[in-house]
Formats: sequence, structure tokens, C-alpha cells
Amino acid sequence: MSFNELRKDYLLDRWVVIATERGRRPTDFAKQERQKTKSGICPMCPGNEHMTPPAVLVYLKTNRGIKKSKDENSFRHKNWLIRCVPNLFPAFAPPKEKIDSGQIWKGNDLAVAVGHHEVLIESPNHDEHPADVQIPQLMLVVNSYINRLRELAAKPYVKYVSIFRNHGLEAGASLSHAHSQIIATPFTPRIVSDELKASKRFWKKTRKCVFCDIMKKERKGPRLILENSKFVVFAPYASVHPMEFWILPKKHEATLLDLSQSEAKTFAETLKTCLSGLKRLLNDPPYNYGFHLTIKKDTCDFYHWHLEVYPKLAIWAGFEKSTGIYINTVTPETAAESLRKTISS
Amino acid sequence: MSFNELRKDYLLDRWVVIATERGRRPTDFAKQERQKTKSGICPMCPGNEHMTPPAVLVYLKTNRGIKKSKDENSFRHKNWLIRCVPNLFPAFAPPKEKIDSGQIWKGNDLAVAVGHHEVLIESPNHDEHPADVQIPQLMLVVNSYINRLRELAAKPYVKYVSIFRNHGLEAGASLSHAHSQIIATPFTPRIVSDELKASKRFWKKTRKCVFCDIMKKERKGPRLILENSKFVVFAPYASVHPMEFWILPKKHEATLLDLSQSEAKTFAETLKTCLSGLKRLLNDPPYNYGFHLTIKKDTCDFYHWHLEVYPKLAIWAGFEKSTGIYINTVTPETAAESLRKTISS
Repeated sequence: MSFNELRKDYLLDRWVVIATERGRRPTDFAKQERQKTKSGICPMCPGNEHMTPPAVLVYLKTNRGIKKSKDENSFRHKNWLIRCVPNLFPAFAPPKEKIDSGQIWKGNDLAVAVGHHEVLIESPNHDEHPADVQIPQLMLVVNSYINRLRELAAKPYVKYVSIFRNHGLEAGASLSHAHSQIIATPFTPRIVSDELKASKRFWKKTRKCVFCDIMKKERKGPRLILENSKFVVFAPYASVHPMEFWILPKKHEATLLDLSQSEAKTFAETLKTCLSGLKRLLNDPPYNYGFHLTIKKDTCDFYHWHLEVYPKLAIWAGFEKSTGIYINTVTPETAAESLRKTISS
Repeated sequence: MSFNELRKDYLLDRWVVIATERGRRPTDFAKQERQKTKSGICPMCPGNEHMTPPAVLVYLKTNRGIKKSKDENSFRHKNWLIRCVPNLFPAFAPPKEKIDSGQIWKGNDLAVAVGHHEVLIESPNHDEHPADVQIPQLMLVVNSYINRLRELAAKPYVKYVSIFRNHGLEAGASLSHAHSQIIATPFTPRIVSDELKASKRFWKKTRKCVFCDIMKKERKGPRLILENSKFVVFAPYASVHPMEFWILPKKHEATLLDLSQSEAKTFAETLKTCLSGLKRLLNDPPYNYGFHLTIKKDTCDFYHWHLEVYPKLAIWAGFEKSTGIYINTVTPETAAESLRKTISS
């Protein structure tokens, strides 16, 4: 088995995947290489299915409605609405046979990057991004997230599943076809783990969910962007990114796994409304979004899943990178007001 | 007094300056605005001294050698080699009168961004960056760092001084004139504070400096880039950025303040060698660097100042931003080998 290395900093609780699969040499980063444009062929467009590994999940359009399936090794379904395929250059890769934690953890600063890294192709139409897509298609995306989350979370070596989306070249999307990514990791990432610890402390003290508490306050304040029957959207108090917003479900749930179809529909509508507001307000800016959730059963009481959306409008430079303090040039209150107005106009 | 707000995340130990001084509206981030090029006038070039606030430090060329001075309010020195000026849009601003910690800390998630934010113009020549500059000029830069560090660290409301440099537009340098920045903060930033805690633990257990220990190992290993009489340069074991490297002084010192002139000279030479190697290898890539140091007297035993250099060759996207796990596509061993070869050729 050949895995990427997961290395921990000498002192900090900071883990890095040394991902050599792509086989990049240092000189690949020289300026002329950095500026190279990609070839014109999109490996995610229909007709190019052979350019990706077989799909682990496909939603197919059939005469009798939409059918869930997967590709066979030598066969790629053609008439698809969604395809979820393993990343050709995975940061985290599945073991070929059973693996125990002693084979994963090689020391306190070294592990093998066991896990999964998948690409979720959100539509057969190259440019059908969530800001513009029809709700039934976006529901398929949400259902794919849940489906993959369920399957990956059940694997014994998987401790967390990160579902995220990069939109636009400046936000790290090297291919412009509408897609999300799913990475399953052998440990809980630092940011989520810190949230879990803090929300557990709050719960022990008050027997309340801290996120329910935050939502209750933000619903009534100047940072509220949108509220409907099932979700609250607001610009967080200490937004790191200009125009950052979070979507929280009103129902206290630690993970996406129990989302009903009616909740999935409202979530798709909420997401589309917000992203299309952002697109209109700022002329289709690059952005990243990532789900925060837990797959651990014992954290259900105090954790609360949510989606964090980070427009990419600023550059983290020497100060941010060497200190971990951030500078945001738009107040969350102003951000919320602009998004609120755009959404309701 | 009007200060920016310093806000802490609901749960995480993550602080954000809400910097409204620049008065940016959300729509300033729309695509046509983002792509606007700057006017042709460089406020850092000689002749444009009136475009900046008066300098807090100037190195002047005189008939009798180099003289240290500062501007008067209504007067700007002309014949300068270095100018350090307050940032026109400071993230952290000095109080107009004496301020106590009760006036700074407004709660456990809110403070006023008291401090300093300065721009150090490294040369009268627009393009004289550290990879190309003459050593005597780069020594003036290093001496300016020390000089400003000494003055800012002595202020009662200053708990940390971050000295950093952004090179290239993609690394956040909005002006291309050779310059560094200095930000003094009212608390120790998370990354440095975590390093302090971990190195203190190591010291309590072993009575040794963990950085001296790291250096001793890295000097003999595959990640070494350069070693001279006073400094060791290596690619750190868990490099977050492709081609990242750190410069550590061999002499155990917690801060820059006691650097001798002979050490400053060797540091300038070491920095120039490494940055010029990086420039030749990757065709002048964007980068950030930041000093890690302490200004607290009681941390001298276990902390060890160093410079961290982060070439900007990758984009942190949804995964990195929402989890705090990083993916680096170049092994530190390969990075070190390439830099070593380029430097010695």
C-alpha cells in the first residue's frame, strides 16, 4: 500500500498531507508553468466519462424517474444527472485491505493519509452552479452529499467527512465544471475538534446547545440575512472573510444524516437564494464553502451542523499566515445588510 | 478615540480585526472593481513623501555617513535610504492618551484594536527587493526591524510585534515598491502563543530549547538547505506551503533585540541567498515571510526567534479553510534539495 504522509508540525496541532501523487516538481511552480491554461477538454462533461475513475455514485435519468446506481469498473453510465467519482490524485486514499489504527498512526507526528477523496460532479451542464441551478437538481446534490457521508462515515478508519465546494479559479477550483469535493479523514480536523470541545464545555455548564443559542441571538440582530421555516442565515459576529455567511438548521441536529426530504428541499432553496444573492451583488465572486458536522454518535447533544460560506475577496498575507489573526475590511453588519437587500430585491 | 474592533469567534480562539478604516463597501469587491489596476504613482518612491504620514524612522545618507532620524509633522526628509511610516489605514492604531487594559478588553469576545501598524519602505529604489539588494542596504532593513521592535515592544499596551513581508500581488502586496510591514498587537497571536506553550512544556520536561533541538536534527537531515557560522536554514518537516523554509539563528535567543551587527550582517546575507535562490528557481514567485519572536522577558529560556518564509504557490481552498488541515504537493525533502542545488550553483 502506498499512502501520502500526514505530518504534524513540530509544536502546533497542525497537520499537513504531503501529497506527492500529483508528482509535481518544484519547477512546475515557476511563473510560466503557473500561468499555463488548461487544455480545452473538460473531464467532467458528458462524453468524457472515460477520463475519470468509475463513479461510486450516479443519479441516472430513466423512463421511470431518477435511479441511483454506480459505475462498473469497465463501464461508465452515460445518461447521468450527478456523478461522484474518486479523485484521480487523492490527498487521502482508501486502504486495499483491513487496516487498524496501529498501521495508520506511526508516531505522534506521523500518520498515513488513509481515507477518501471524491469529486461530486453536480450537473451534466458545465456551468450549472448552485446560484443558477433548478431546485430538483440541487436537491440531488444535497442528497448525494448525504449518501456519500453515510457510506464514508460507516468505515472504521474514517473519523471525519469534509464536504466542500470551491468556486472560481481564485478560490482554488482548477476545473470550472460545477463540482464539490468530499474528503474523509482518519481524525477530526482541528477547527471542528476545537468547536466540539468548546460546545461540549458550554453544554456541560448549561445543558444547552451553543449553536442553538447563537442562532437565537443572531435571529434578532443586525447580522441576520435570511430566516425561513427551517434555516437561519447570518454573517457571523467575527467573520474572518469579507461577506462570509453561515447557514444553520433550526432543528438541533449534529449531522446531515437525518435530514428529511422536505428539509433537503428547503436547504437547497436557502443555499440557492444566498449564493445567487452573492453572485448578483458581487458579479459572481469566487468562494469556498464547507460543512461543519460530526459523525460521532456521542456528540449529538452539543454539536449542531452548519454550512460556512467564505467569499474569496481578500488575500491572507504574511500577517495572517504567521500569526493566525485575521483582518476583515467589511463589517459583518454591513455584509448582512447588503446581502439582505440583494436577496429581497 | 476611534479604534477598529477585535472580535473573537463564538467558539474558536480566533481573533479578527474588523478594519473599517478603509471604508470599503461590499460592492467594492465586485469583479470590475477587483480587476482595477492602481494609478501609476507610487507613494513610496522618492519625491512622493507627502503622500505618506511623517516617518517614525528614517535612515538618511549624509556626508558623514548614515544618520538615523524621523520626520517632523510638517517636514519629510528627502535624502533617505529607509523610511518607516504609519500605515494610512492601520488595522491596529495607537491610543491618543494613556490606556489601561480595562479600556482595551470589552469582554471575552471583544477588544479594541490598540497597537501600531507601520510600513517599512526598504529602499528608495522601487524594485530593490531582498533577493537583489546590496547587503549594506539589507542590513539597514534588519536594523530598522530591530529599532522599531525595540520602540514598540516598550509600550505598555503592546504584547506582540509582528514583522512581515508580502512579495507580489498574489501574496497580498498591493503596492510593488519593496516594503515590509510591522504590526504591534495588544495580545500574543494564537500561532505564537501555541508555540510558546508547547516550547515551555518541552523546556519544563527537558530543560532544553525545543528549537535548538529541532535545529540539531534538521542540520543533519535531508531537509537542510543551508548552514553557515550563525544560521541554519531548512524546509520544516510538516511544511504547510510548497517550498516553505525557516531561518533559525544558532545562538539561542528569544527575540531579535540582542542581535549584534555581525549577526545582522550574516542574517542579511543568509536571507538574500535564500530569497535569491527561490527567485532563480521559480522565476520570482510571490511569497510572504514573518518573524516569530517573543517580547516577553520570562520566555527567554524556552523560545527561539526565527523567520518563516512561505512561497505562495498554492491556494487554500474549502478544505483547508473549513478544517485547518493542509495539503502540500511538494515534499519538504524535495523542496530542500532544489533550493540547496540552486543556491550552490
